[in-house]
Amino acid sequence: MSNKTPMNRRPLSKLLDPKSVAVIGASDDAKRIGGRPLQYLLKGTFSGPVYAVNANRETVQGIPAYKTILDVPGEVDAVIIAVPAAVVIQTVRDCAKKGVGAAVIFTSGFAEQDTQGVEWQSELTQISNKTGIRLLGPNCLGTFNAKTGWLATFTTSIDQYPVRPGPIAIASQSGAFGSHLYTVAAKRGVRCTYWVTTGNEADVELSECIAYYAQSPEVKVIAVYAEGVRNGPGLRDALELAYRNKKPVIFQKVGRSGAGAEAAASHTASLAGSDEIYDALFRQYGVFRVDSIEELLDIALACQAGAMPSGDKIGLLTISGGAGVQMADTAEASGLNVAEMPIEQQKHLKELIPFAGVRNPVDVTAQALNDLTLIKRFMESMMEFGGYDAVVAFFTVVAGSRVISEQLIETLKDIREQYVNAPMILSIVAPDDIVRDYEKAGYTILEDPARAVRAAAALIHFGTSFEKNLAAQAPALPPNVMQAPDKLRGEDECRKILASAGIPMANSELARTAKDAVSIWQGIKVPVALKIVSSDILHKTEIGGVALNLNNANDIENAFNRIIEAGKTHYPDAKIDGVIVSEMITDGVETVLGVINDPIFGPAVMFGLGGVFVEVLSDVTFRLAPFDITEAHRMISEIKGIKMLYGARGAQPSDINSIAEALVKLSVFAHKNAEKISSIDINPFMVKPEGKGAAGVDALIIPNGVEVN
Amino acid sequence: MSNKTPMNRRPLSKLLDPKSVAVIGASDDAKRIGGRPLQYLLKGTFSGPVYAVNANRETVQGIPAYKTILDVPGEVDAVIIAVPAAVVIQTVRDCAKKGVGAAVIFTSGFAEQDTQGVEWQSELTQISNKTGIRLLGPNCLGTFNAKTGWLATFTTSIDQYPVRPGPIAIASQSGAFGSHLYTVAAKRGVRCTYWVTTGNEADVELSECIAYYAQSPEVKVIAVYAEGVRNGPGLRDALELAYRNKKPVIFQKVGRSGAGAEAAASHTASLAGSDEIYDALFRQYGVFRVDSIEELLDIALACQAGAMPSGDKIGLLTISGGAGVQMADTAEASGLNVAEMPIEQQKHLKELIPFAGVRNPVDVTAQALNDLTLIKRFMESMMEFGGYDAVVAFFTVVAGSRVISEQLIETLKDIREQYVNAPMILSIVAPDDIVRDYEKAGYTILEDPARAVRAAAALIHFGTSFEKNLAAQAPALPPNVMQAPDKLRGEDECRKILASAGIPMANSELARTAKDAVSIWQGIKVPVALKIVSSDILHKTEIGGVALNLNNANDIENAFNRIIEAGKTHYPDAKIDGVIVSEMITDGVETVLGVINDPIFGPAVMFGLGGVFVEVLSDVTFRLAPFDITEAHRMISEIKGIKMLYGARGAQPSDINSIAEALVKLSVFAHKNAEKISSIDINPFMVKPEGKGAAGVDALIIPNGVEVN
Repeated sequence: MSNKTPMNRRPLSKLLDPKSVAVIGASDDAKRIGGRPLQYLLKGTFSGPVYAVNANRETVQGIPAYKTILDVPGEVDAVIIAVPAAVVIQTVRDCAKKGVGAAVIFTSGFAEQDTQGVEWQSELTQISNKTGIRLLGPNCLGTFNAKTGWLATFTTSIDQYPVRPGPIAIASQSGAFGSHLYTVAAKRGVRCTYWVTTGNEADVELSECIAYYAQSPEVKVIAVYAEGVRNGPGLRDALELAYRNKKPVIFQKVGRSGAGAEAAASHTASLAGSDEIYDALFRQYGVFRVDSIEELLDIALACQAGAMPSGDKIGLLTISGGAGVQMADTAEASGLNVAEMPIEQQKHLKELIPFAGVRNPVDVTAQALNDLTLIKRFMESMMEFGGYDAVVAFFTVVAGSRVISEQLIETLKDIREQYVNAPMILSIVAPDDIVRDYEKAGYTILEDPARAVRAAAALIHFGTSFEKNLAAQAPALPPNVMQAPDKLRGEDECRKILASAGIPMANSELARTAKDAVSIWQGIKVPVALKIVSSDILHKTEIGGVALNLNNANDIENAFNRIIEAGKTHYPDAKIDGVIVSEMITDGVETVLGVINDPIFGPAVMFGLGGVFVEVLSDVTFRLAPFDITEAHRMISEIKGIKMLYGARGAQPSDINSIAEALVKLSVFAHKNAEKISSIDINPFMVKPEGKGAAGVDALIIPNGVEVN
Repeated sequence: MSNKTPMNRRPLSKLLDPKSVAVIGASDDAKRIGGRPLQYLLKGTFSGPVYAVNANRETVQGIPAYKTILDVPGEVDAVIIAVPAAVVIQTVRDCAKKGVGAAVIFTSGFAEQDTQGVEWQSELTQISNKTGIRLLGPNCLGTFNAKTGWLATFTTSIDQYPVRPGPIAIASQSGAFGSHLYTVAAKRGVRCTYWVTTGNEADVELSECIAYYAQSPEVKVIAVYAEGVRNGPGLRDALELAYRNKKPVIFQKVGRSGAGAEAAASHTASLAGSDEIYDALFRQYGVFRVDSIEELLDIALACQAGAMPSGDKIGLLTISGGAGVQMADTAEASGLNVAEMPIEQQKHLKELIPFAGVRNPVDVTAQALNDLTLIKRFMESMMEFGGYDAVVAFFTVVAGSRVISEQLIETLKDIREQYVNAPMILSIVAPDDIVRDYEKAGYTILEDPARAVRAAAALIHFGTSFEKNLAAQAPALPPNVMQAPDKLRGEDECRKILASAGIPMANSELARTAKDAVSIWQGIKVPVALKIVSSDILHKTEIGGVALNLNNANDIENAFNRIIEAGKTHYPDAKIDGVIVSEMITDGVETVLGVINDPIFGPAVMFGLGGVFVEVLSDVTFRLAPFDITEAHRMISEIKGIKMLYGARGAQPSDINSIAEALVKLSVFAHKNAEKISSIDINPFMVKPEGKGAAGVDALIIPNGVEVN
């Protein structure tokens, strides 16, 4: 919650990997929330001391009960708090006094409930800040560490599906959803070492858990469920850490839609940043965003096998032509390269099975299952000569029997071991035990062929994105850069400020006399536009305050006088500053650059094509500031109308590099001035043909706290 | 295969519902393809006579074996043929001679293999056409009728998952995929009465099976898998029949992508129509297109319950706020209306559970499962006062135990019975037997909440689309309509032809002299454009052969002379017909109307916005001709840039009705001239503000067989 770190703040390991624990509000009844975790701890594998605290009993579940935590004799790293809301604060104070490192607070009735609860929760935050004790919750379902048996949760899910340590770590804001996620994961053989639900986040928030996972050697894959975070920079840092440690993060962020966002707001006290900003953040750090638990688990399962290739060539093997076509459809829709097999190998494979499909998809036909060595030879050919980065194979129910599964695993053993970096995902319909056998042999099993291909695409997404380099640091601004304004300024001044940051802007100057105007044009020597400057005149075009495409002294002088005259006629009381003379750019593609200062994440830079693209199609993309040139290019390539910049309709390709450079500089400027600005618009930003640059024509900087209609 | 129906062609019921059957090539070994179906028939529920034909044995699997089909004493409705390719033709001839109604040909080695196979297959088609015997396959996995026990297939899937009659019917071109589909369906409790795989389609094709299902009282839901059909009108008729009988068709058509299409072409001998045309067809007849088997089965499962509401208000009930948000996201993305609960009821529900979410999603919190009557009261409120057309509820693992499932079903019994037309889909994690209990009680169970919402959206899609009326017949063309040209004609003539069909075209006339030009303008009295007319001059604009925006006699006369002069200068040998004088339309939105004559489906009409929308974004949509005004409006509403027509950027709304009328007329014209045209372009078709009409400015009709560069 707070960004201030008190001196004595305890490390998160006290919460997630404690050596000694206590349950406060411990119950003899294992069905109650104070009883179930105690039972889990006593009957499970937790090897450190477990204490029970209950003011009204001598013993609980067969162990002695202490009156308060202060009466516990030994050291206590972490406690579970299952007492009524009204006594939680005193309990936490006692814990802090005792020197407890962390408390898991199940109790509800805090910020999610009423103003009294909001007050209590704020007090919890203060205690944590002051004493350094770490708090999970309140109003959460707790946490577990499957490796040590620290099962600090009252969910019944781990009764039904006992915890099994493994490469996955889950962090969820929602308790019920976190529990659902764990259950479905466990049912499908996804093995989790860590599981945390953060509830109201009085202290520990999601990002800190992600950062912990990012540094934990046991964790290979991070799965996150969130409705919205309050500490944007914290999340950004955590995702960057995971990225640098090459740990795939699969993120389900709900609240994309209007209705969803409303539900999120009424469900949690969290203030959600706008959804586009999350997308920007996720793109920046290679996070894979999913829309369903199922997709999350498909990918987690596939990541669990370990291979994440950085090439996008996918090999599709099938025993049914139809399934092959479907997989090819899905692969293309997922941006994968369904590269053809080398012609020589196609001939060779045709000799093995005359009716096989050999291009890719490679269709061995159902007959190959009568002679599995054929499948082996096809796979060898695909891996060695096709050079595929990943393989998805459709074997359906045919490979789902014990007889075939054992033979198939044995037959493909050498290939599986030789190409350890290539994911092999099999679409097989089989009972769970046979699925587990395939998994042990290094395959991922997903029943549906489309889902199998999409999981392969996610692995390739991670592999590819871990290859790219994050900028070591943001580039510096020019030495003579101007500050962002504190008050609303005219477009001329905004243009100058942005130009000082290195963003190319169209030549333009304020002329106070007709002579000024002519001499400004003489300095530029290209066609110019004239526009009246006055904060009192709103509809400049309508009153004749604008003239376009002037390219000789006489016309410019006349236009200047006409414009001033028009201003005086229509707005007799207006204060007229003069007329702006600016370079006309006619041979460019219209784009829009912008910045919005997100309340959660800070400044985000926007890019889009102008005209109908931005106004009708909302074809824009965002990145959190600051970022480097590679990221800027990635950003530009995301817009739907990108063809316009590549040179659509016979036009020359645009100077994309100039856009990228301008975006980077805008991002650095916005980042440095994050406290001052509310938003920036450079619209239009005209992009000329390749090699000829680009220039912003109109600019507006809205300072923080200024309302603009 | 053929459109000609011989006099004595047998009805498809001989194939799908025979009363007496024989297996030719019957084997004693139940593992062989001639043995397995015989075993299915003898040990299953088929009640009619079953004969075995095997030239080399006295008995097969305990019943007498006849030398040939001609030796079988009784009548035979259908046979299974499992003999080598080389003797299939003679076998089929014998069957025809015997008066057999239909043959299921498993044998492969026909058109999918080599030229010999192509010949043989063509002979099979001829025998069928001549004698009327119906042929399924060759190279297919057969068919079954679960109601009668006619199990004419050698797939082992029905060994593993015995057939159970039910409301679903499956038709698949691919055998292996069809078998996979059946297995996964059966595993999930989807009950199929009919299952057909059509293989090479020497005679019976997919569409005929769909038409049969559309008329079969047992069938409530039709599930189809196809790689591409060869008889487009046949498919259209079948889908129309299903539509008129209000039977939902769920269609997986693969080959969307480039790679997919290649694989389809190499897998089957089928000539696929372009994918956009399939989309057009599916939209026209309310078919739900899916991209995966999983989605197909989710929807089939949901359809099986029977309710398909025609309203789009979805109620979301949840025990986890997070899941509620996710469901709301998915619902909005699926185009559903996540309507809020009435305010009064929100207050009322808050009284029942103070911390509940009550807007919609309605979050009863996990506590409600301790007192199921609370869930009942919330559900009552949602159905009675919220008026939702469908409900999706997230209960996860919590409702997956026997204790809770029995109580929940009992508690909600009255509500379930009272709102029988509202689908109720529950997201529950439960063992299969408990899932079956919920299903029996009238619920659809889908584990994943996102998939549950998407299935609800599909039911609403069907309900809504069955409400709309198909045009009883296409509107007539004006009496004086001109014929489509046989040769390539100039734009002026094309314009006149289309105008004669009732499509509004900009006023324009050919002028042979400057005086002509002026008098044409005087007839129109609006600004005009002049353009040189000569089939010898290609780049008219570049040579100065075009002049725009002329609105007085003098300018027009000068422009005419200049244009003719320019033509003569640049193309001294050109035959110049004159100059077209046409009305300029400047206050309109640029759109494009077109027709392509698809080789499979015939003429399809295209609509799109002009400029970047069609050229950069390919923002167009299609419908098969002919269609009525309602369908035209639906079509227009599908384009991504539709906001442009509603009046984007302060513009007035466009005259959408004029577009719709033009599309209908174009569709009727294209349909009537299907034999003559290859394509039509009306580009641009300028649409003026509402009430002011629209007009095509340029037009091109390309006749069949004419090559244009």
